Amino acid sequence: MDKFLKNGHGLLLAYDQGFEHGPSDFNAKNVDPAYILDIARESGVFTGIIFQKGISKKQKTKNDNLPPLIVKLNGKTGLHAGEEPFAPLLCTVDEALGLGAAAVGYTVYVGSEREAEMTKTFGKIVRECNQKGIPTIGWFYLRGKQIVNPHDPEKLAYAARLALELGADGVKLQYKLSLEPQSSRAKRGDLINQIAASSTTPRNDDVDLKNLKWIVQNAGKCKVFISGGLKASDEEMFSLARIVKTAGCAGMAIGRNIWQRDDPVEFAKKIGGIIYA
Amino acid sequence: MDKFLKNGHGLLLAYDQGFEHGPSDFNAKNVDPAYILDIARESGVFTGIIFQKGISKKQKTKNDNLPPLIVKLNGKTGLHAGEEPFAPLLCTVDEALGLGAAAVGYTVYVGSEREAEMTKTFGKIVRECNQKGIPTIGWFYLRGKQIVNPHDPEKLAYAARLALELGADGVKLQYKLSLEPQSSRAKRGDLINQIAASSTTPRNDDVDLKNLKWIVQNAGKCKVFISGGLKASDEEMFSLARIVKTAGCAGMAIGRNIWQRDDPVEFAKKIGGIIYA
Amino acid sequence: MDKFLKNGHGLLLAYDQGFEHGPSDFNAKNVDPAYILDIARESGVFTGIIFQKGISKKQKTKNDNLPPLIVKLNGKTGLHAGEEPFAPLLCTVDEALGLGAAAVGYTVYVGSEREAEMTKTFGKIVRECNQKGIPTIGWFYLRGKQIVNPHDPEKLAYAARLALELGADGVKLQYKLSLEPQSSRAKRGDLINQIAASSTTPRNDDVDLKNLKWIVQNAGKCKVFISGGLKASDEEMFSLARIVKTAGCAGMAIGRNIWQRDDPVEFAKKIGGIIYA
Amino acid sequence: MDKFLKNGHGLLLAYDQGFEHGPSDFNAKNVDPAYILDIARESGVFTGIIFQKGISKKQKTKNDNLPPLIVKLNGKTGLHAGEEPFAPLLCTVDEALGLGAAAVGYTVYVGSEREAEMTKTFGKIVRECNQKGIPTIGWFYLRGKQIVNPHDPEKLAYAARLALELGADGVKLQYKLSLEPQSSRAKRGDLINQIAASSTTPRNDDVDLKNLKWIVQNAGKCKVFISGGLKASDEEMFSLARIVKTAGCAGMAIGRNIWQRDDPVEFAKKIGGIIYA
Amino acid sequence: MDKFLKNGHGLLLAYDQGFEHGPSDFNAKNVDPAYILDIARESGVFTGIIFQKGISKKQKTKNDNLPPLIVKLNGKTGLHAGEEPFAPLLCTVDEALGLGAAAVGYTVYVGSEREAEMTKTFGKIVRECNQKGIPTIGWFYLRGKQIVNPHDPEKLAYAARLALELGADGVKLQYKLSLEPQSSRAKRGDLINQIAASSTTPRNDDVDLKNLKWIVQNAGKCKVFISGGLKASDEEMFSLARIVKTAGCAGMAIGRNIWQRDDPVEFAKKIGGIIYA
Repeated sequence: MDKFLKNGHGLLLAYDQGFEHGPSDFNAKNVDPAYILDIARESGVFTGIIFQKGISKKQKTKNDNLPPLIVKLNGKTGLHAGEEPFAPLLCTVDEALGLGAAAVGYTVYVGSEREAEMTKTFGKIVRECNQKGIPTIGWFYLRGKQIVNPHDPEKLAYAARLALELGADGVKLQYKLSLEPQSSRAKRGDLINQIAASSTTPRNDDVDLKNLKWIVQNAGKCKVFISGGLKASDEEMFSLARIVKTAGCAGMAIGRNIWQRDDPVEFAKKIGGIIYA
Repeated sequence: MDKFLKNGHGLLLAYDQGFEHGPSDFNAKNVDPAYILDIARESGVFTGIIFQKGISKKQKTKNDNLPPLIVKLNGKTGLHAGEEPFAPLLCTVDEALGLGAAAVGYTVYVGSEREAEMTKTFGKIVRECNQKGIPTIGWFYLRGKQIVNPHDPEKLAYAARLALELGADGVKLQYKLSLEPQSSRAKRGDLINQIAASSTTPRNDDVDLKNLKWIVQNAGKCKVFISGGLKASDEEMFSLARIVKTAGCAGMAIGRNIWQRDDPVEFAKKIGGIIYA
Repeated sequence: MDKFLKNGHGLLLAYDQGFEHGPSDFNAKNVDPAYILDIARESGVFTGIIFQKGISKKQKTKNDNLPPLIVKLNGKTGLHAGEEPFAPLLCTVDEALGLGAAAVGYTVYVGSEREAEMTKTFGKIVRECNQKGIPTIGWFYLRGKQIVNPHDPEKLAYAARLALELGADGVKLQYKLSLEPQSSRAKRGDLINQIAASSTTPRNDDVDLKNLKWIVQNAGKCKVFISGGLKASDEEMFSLARIVKTAGCAGMAIGRNIWQRDDPVEFAKKIGGIIYA
Repeated sequence: MDKFLKNGHGLLLAYDQGFEHGPSDFNAKNVDPAYILDIARESGVFTGIIFQKGISKKQKTKNDNLPPLIVKLNGKTGLHAGEEPFAPLLCTVDEALGLGAAAVGYTVYVGSEREAEMTKTFGKIVRECNQKGIPTIGWFYLRGKQIVNPHDPEKLAYAARLALELGADGVKLQYKLSLEPQSSRAKRGDLINQIAASSTTPRNDDVDLKNLKWIVQNAGKCKVFISGGLKASDEEMFSLARIVKTAGCAGMAIGRNIWQRDDPVEFAKKIGGIIYA
Repeated sequence: MDKFLKNGHGLLLAYDQGFEHGPSDFNAKNVDPAYILDIARESGVFTGIIFQKGISKKQKTKNDNLPPLIVKLNGKTGLHAGEEPFAPLLCTVDEALGLGAAAVGYTVYVGSEREAEMTKTFGKIVRECNQKGIPTIGWFYLRGKQIVNPHDPEKLAYAARLALELGADGVKLQYKLSLEPQSSRAKRGDLINQIAASSTTPRNDDVDLKNLKWIVQNAGKCKVFISGGLKASDEEMFSLARIVKTAGCAGMAIGRNIWQRDDPVEFAKKIGGIIYA
């Protein structure tokens, strides 16, 4: 994983949302992969860039000023509400290497009725990556009818542990801050939030820090990357980045929170400032 | 894909309806594959011809005056109403090459409960085609119980994006004009249509153009071909061809709208006149 | 297919009923495969003989006076009422060649929920047979809960087309005469039939001829063989053979209507007289 | 199959009940495979001994005084009441050969919804056994929700035929005498049985003989072995052995009726006396 | 199995609970695999240590003072309440060897609707392990809707037999003492227990001894290891170890009852004192 870290930390630029969510995440600018590559090049803070095989094939991704490529090996469309989640293998490790990948990504829907198909395939990919000498990064997401809360901290620690036990070198998890940070709460102006905001050290940071540390401990030698998720306020993203950093995670994997912004390069640099501090 | 384009545009002659719909599409003339080859030869406008393996095997498809062959690798019969759509692999890439194919076609029913089986196999075909150096063309159709409207423009843009992310070189989509063109509406003679027809620039053309441009943008470097679909009036087909061309699609893939006509060669030339204009 | 035709026509002797229906089709004589071989040898009209692998293995099928062997590659028992029909692959193309086969047979239950598994495997068999240079004959039967009438002429034309599109060299179909021929109707003696019988040209022959011709047209360069089916009267079989011949089919595939008869050799010669006329 | 026959007849010693039924069939003596080998050695009447791979591996089965080994390739536990029966492949043909097998056994649950999976695998095993030159013996048992009576004679004839058509060299069937033999009936002492017993030739023997002969005819060149089944009285077993012999079966496959007895060696010799008479 | 035994007995240190149960079994110390290795090194009583592939890969497991490594080849998460249990294959035999394994472990959920998938794969692993010359250890657990009591002694004997028949060299079973040992019962202080405690030889020890002996007899040459299970009192564990030893089992496989204790090294030595006595 060293290739994807600077001084032990990293920021991955995610761009597989076209597959997972469709065009609803895009506008006329960011629908074009070249725009994403520009952001990566100009900001200079990313230690990896994540594409599906199709984008990797059509786009020139090898360049001294570009971070190393992570090819996502599986994926599913967002057209399957109510079905137990499963993402089939679309690309092999060898194929990813041929496309210039320095690592591969693979999603396991932890808790899904079809989890076993995915852990089995993940086991196979880890085996192949070990043979080829490249890292395997798991997207370990809590999903399926057994999962009430996909952000349940204890179950995220379970997902992190699962990634370690399966031999992942890195794991991407969807952590959600337990309460909004002080600043954004203050904006709302209602009484309860003002009271909460009046306390000098917000209690929820401690909870999040404790949660993330337990996640990191369970992941052991597997590096933890926290998802950026849906576009959030600048302050929320900075809070998340700070807690991620303090808790000992390797870093973040962000997509929409970069390329859906008007100032993606500037914003990426700010996040980088926190993660690499 | 250059082999299937003239100055960046193309027209594909589709003839796999015998498999997908059965004899109901045929008459005593067009039931014979030789008739289709005659149309391709005489019109001179097609940049590709689409057959299943059985027709490719029994018919002499290699000829200086014939467009290059696209062998369709999967297919399903029309006898499965109410089942979640799935088309199994019937022919391999190597087999298609042995039959003289210069490209292969493969259908993914986007939204089907069995979509994952098809995206997985499509991923495998893309891999093989890359190795052999031939293009992969996807038939990406919205189908299954999750799909309310198989012509939903936003979901078609999703399908187009999916094709790009999966590594397709071309994608065939079933776009439907949002409203009938002025001329055909005028024929009906009722009041509302007369009013609509009285406006000089029909509003729906703008909608269709916007839709198709968004589809093309999402498809990126993957070439977009719009289906001809059920036999329509000449005017409707010309309107469709014009919008397809204006929106920046690569072209069309037409079957019934050619070989169910009394004047297939003449009509094909007219469509070609629009697409290659 | 030339090996299985005399002047463009053929008669195949079917003996896989032990697998498909069980002992209920047999008596003390025809339960023995040697009896079937005797009929084939003595009648001299058959251009092919159809066995499962077990019979092919235990019986000496190679003989100058015996027609070439067609090994049936799949099969199912008759113990699955109400289940969607599926016949698994039991024998490979190589294995059939090792048993002396000059062609292979494979059943596709067209319309079954499991049709895709069978068309996929059929596609694989066609591929292998092309490589080995032997013909593939499809048993394309309409079956499953989607099929109301397994003898529907339009759907049989669909099945014939499917065989062609999949690359079959021959197809066996279960066609049923639309009305009984004049002679047998006359036997009943009731008024309506007498009236029908009084017309010089029976109307139903035209319907059957039209149906079968459309089937043959859809099958194109794939040879059509009509099943003999359940044991019928001599006259019915002769009528069927005549229409089959007139419509341009390659011939028939008969089993029970030969070896359940008291005079199999004589009867086979009569059918041969019609088909090769 | 000659290796498993003496003058055309054979007795197979079955010991796979530990897998199929569990410890309930065992006592402190017969739970030990060494005890079974002792019976085989001392009685000298068996022409084959049947083990799963685990027993074959841990026990020394190669000995001049031991009959040749038949390794059972599949099996299922008795813990699946109400599920459609299926026995997965646990051992390959090559593995069985490595364990010293001179033949292999495989169960097909005829009538089960999962029958197709088993006939397919059986077809594969027959293919491999033919290549290696060893016989394949089928356990063809009527089972599943479609089967009302697993001892239905006509359906057993179907199972026998299926074994032949699939290429089995031997088939084990669970035949049940249609009525108890005269002697055991007489013991009951009630009126109806006394009357039945008073007739010099019991009618049911004729029925059983007719049934078994029809089974043997349907099996053709595939050798028929009748199961011993649940432990029965000495007289019942002798009756069964006599009818089996008279009907032309190859012999019996017995387990519990040997090693659950107090005098296994003596009893085996008596059964051998009948079968080899 | 000799490598995993001292004078015929062994103690295996289990640490795959992170995969099977998640972080709920862990605290800040035992969440770290290095802590487990320390216990193994310092206690010196273990003859094997059990890890999933991920831990095996990230941790240095080869050391003169460490017991040989057993890599667990399959596993499932605890997030599937109500589903029929199934653990997919995550690691191959070759991969385990590459990670330094001297044996492999594999779970079969005996009684599960998916049992056949697991016995089939177990059969494959046994085959490979025989070829490579390393032992196969089965985790044979009674599970699924058919299993009322996962500790049913007769069914555990069945599971033990199944392991033998499938070719396992060792089997891990979840045996539960039929009644609590005298000492712990006495603590409760209620009347009935005082009465029971007053008898000098507790009746239930005889039952457990008889049960375990029957299990051992059914397992034959396959070595039996009893699970430690949920953390229990010291006395309960000593009682279990004594009965296990007396009944002729090979030993125990313990995890939580070691590393969830405050004095893991001391406690392990005490258990070792009983097992190796």
